[in-house]
Amino acid sequence: METSASIIARIEDLAREGGLSLKAMLVGSAARGTWLSEDHDLDIFLGVPPGCDLGAALEIARRVAPDHEEKYAEHAYVHARMDGFEVDLVPCYLVEDAACLLSAVDRTPFHTKYVGSRIIGREDDVLLLKQFMKGVNVYGSELRVGGFSGYLAELLVLCYGSFAGVLQAANAWRPGQRLDLEGHGIARHSEPLIMVDPVDPGRNVAAALTLDKMLLFAGAARSFLAEPKLDFFFPASLAPLSDEELIAQINARGTMPILLEFAAPDVVEDVLYPQLRKAEGSIKALIDRNGFSLLRSDVSTYRDRALMLFEMQVWQLSKACPRIGPPAWEADHLSRFLAAHPRPLSGPYIANGKVVVEEARQYTSARDLLAEEIANLSLGKHLSASIRDGHNIYAGRELLSIKDEGFRIFLAHYFLAKFRIG
Amino acid sequence: METSASIIARIEDLAREGGLSLKAMLVGSAARGTWLSEDHDLDIFLGVPPGCDLGAALEIARRVAPDHEEKYAEHAYVHARMDGFEVDLVPCYLVEDAACLLSAVDRTPFHTKYVGSRIIGREDDVLLLKQFMKGVNVYGSELRVGGFSGYLAELLVLCYGSFAGVLQAANAWRPGQRLDLEGHGIARHSEPLIMVDPVDPGRNVAAALTLDKMLLFAGAARSFLAEPKLDFFFPASLAPLSDEELIAQINARGTMPILLEFAAPDVVEDVLYPQLRKAEGSIKALIDRNGFSLLRSDVSTYRDRALMLFEMQVWQLSKACPRIGPPAWEADHLSRFLAAHPRPLSGPYIANGKVVVEEARQYTSARDLLAEEIANLSLGKHLSASIRDGHNIYAGRELLSIKDEGFRIFLAHYFLAKFRIG
Repeated sequence: METSASIIARIEDLAREGGLSLKAMLVGSAARGTWLSEDHDLDIFLGVPPGCDLGAALEIARRVAPDHEEKYAEHAYVHARMDGFEVDLVPCYLVEDAACLLSAVDRTPFHTKYVGSRIIGREDDVLLLKQFMKGVNVYGSELRVGGFSGYLAELLVLCYGSFAGVLQAANAWRPGQRLDLEGHGIARHSEPLIMVDPVDPGRNVAAALTLDKMLLFAGAARSFLAEPKLDFFFPASLAPLSDEELIAQINARGTMPILLEFAAPDVVEDVLYPQLRKAEGSIKALIDRNGFSLLRSDVSTYRDRALMLFEMQVWQLSKACPRIGPPAWEADHLSRFLAAHPRPLSGPYIANGKVVVEEARQYTSARDLLAEEIANLSLGKHLSASIRDGHNIYAGRELLSIKDEGFRIFLAHYFLAKFRIG
Repeated sequence: METSASIIARIEDLAREGGLSLKAMLVGSAARGTWLSEDHDLDIFLGVPPGCDLGAALEIARRVAPDHEEKYAEHAYVHARMDGFEVDLVPCYLVEDAACLLSAVDRTPFHTKYVGSRIIGREDDVLLLKQFMKGVNVYGSELRVGGFSGYLAELLVLCYGSFAGVLQAANAWRPGQRLDLEGHGIARHSEPLIMVDPVDPGRNVAAALTLDKMLLFAGAARSFLAEPKLDFFFPASLAPLSDEELIAQINARGTMPILLEFAAPDVVEDVLYPQLRKAEGSIKALIDRNGFSLLRSDVSTYRDRALMLFEMQVWQLSKACPRIGPPAWEADHLSRFLAAHPRPLSGPYIANGKVVVEEARQYTSARDLLAEEIANLSLGKHLSASIRDGHNIYAGRELLSIKDEGFRIFLAHYFLAKFRIG
């Protein structure tokens, strides 16, 4: 903690020089001894009294880390690499009560204060739990992951007493599980897990946790308790899929993977991933609407590229397609229907009481559908612009032409990942 | 009617010689002047008093038509070709009341009696109606057709007064339409059209009429009234599909027609067609259950062969197939599910709260499915035996190898028939 102590001293020196009322604090896991050894993030907050100017605090942050990058969440902050650490210098307001925040980051010091004294003696449980979550791929509240935040892991240890206690309890979780350490929750939440923030009764700490990650954690916990093994914490990493392995997967699965690939818009992951997921949903609906059948899909990024993968069960359809009209006795409705389908391939005929015509389908190939319709979908500002600027579609073995290691690791996870959820 | 008069005279002579109390009657449309010119069927009934032996009547029928064929419905009867007519000589009982029949054929004389006096002056309306029904392909109560019987056509004219009256009325028909000339109906019926038999209050004359044929008639009636044309009565007949036309259809439709073809069991059409329709339903369910998608199907016979045609929208599937398991928190159910799927292609993973594995599908081609599973389906005694003895499967252009004209006419109807149901 030498690094953080010297940064804090330097900040407070500069504040004094400038006559600024400012309190610098180490927050997050580094402050509470619940810090995974491979993490190299330091979060240092620059607190000023409400009413003061955050801009002055930001200016000090800039001077402390001359070689920095400016980022922006709710307010601007400074990110820099110092002594081998990734350091965030975040201006915030020092409010009296966590329920009266001026900005979301103002809550963080309250978390540090709440957890700090209570977690003493259980730091190792928190570390085990975080590493377990990392190992089973549910750690991180960023929207790309949709997993458990470090603070949530800490609160779970406080709630259930120990690492093992959390794992045992998770076995009984159902969607809608509610936990409230202070018994002061005041709001209803629709998320699958509700952990009422002990410093803010209206907030759900687990708001970013998805149902599937919650259940994946519970399932892994069950498997681990039945048969504890070290590799739950440190699973073997998957090697990038080789050409031969990719061909073997495509042959064994007999599916048609269709990849849409384009330049990732220049926005942070927490903006990009929700857009990618939403676009994935729109394209799934497009595929469905047109009579094809999807097996599975996923989205990801590698280097500066974004990708959406759609693995098809049915990617080729007949040209002829039935259009089912009204019951044959609804004369008015029927004449409109027949007028709308003047030159069918077959029919009109009656089947099960309804008038049917068979017409030519617009798309008989899922690849053509995607290629033609992608420009017509409304996929959100950033993605639409990026896709319009250029995109590639790869189907089946054409995937082999992308050699990038990050892409091949994505494919390895897509095809080979097995989750121990017995 | 010379032919029928001379046959009747000959029968009554033989009965007198044998000391048999027997009354020979011409029944059906020939007896009532509602006979379509292209029909060459004479139905002559040999009525004996209840208690007498139908066998003696049958023996007389045999002697009247030495070169005959014996057929069997509820009882044996004689079929012969005489003077260019197809003559049925049917023994029956002369009962007093149509509600106390000894055999279904005993009802026929009552129909002739009921219609005979009432239809006078409206024979032409019946003829028009029958020819219209023929022209729009809804005439005939045999199960292959599922249309209107001649008796039903006569009753409709009695009910609505004229040919035009029937057509106008049909426009307002809905499934469940009930007609009761004598207002004496005593039973509930679930068929789409109910015409209570005026000589038997418990019977629905329209029992064999299918919903689709009923609605096809009503739709054609509507079209005819809007724009009357002679070809409703005498549509151009469809020529057998040539090789070129068949190839053009397959190309334009982009479907995969799969034909199952085998020796037609040696049973009458009214036994064969219900079995074919039932088998068609079983195979449709098999196709559906295995993830393929059918566009349309039909059954028919040509020469001594039976056929079922299945035209596929989706005939090829991926090898990989998702198996959706229980919600991830149902631990017991989940372990059984995972034990039942020990070596999936992918997974287990969690999607939408449920555990999923991806396994290899048994059949990725609809043709293989049919070829392998046809022997395992229970398709009814006659069909199962016939299919077991040998069958052929033709897919796509393989259909070209069947040159039979009857088959090619079937295909013409299947692909090209348009029904005027505006």
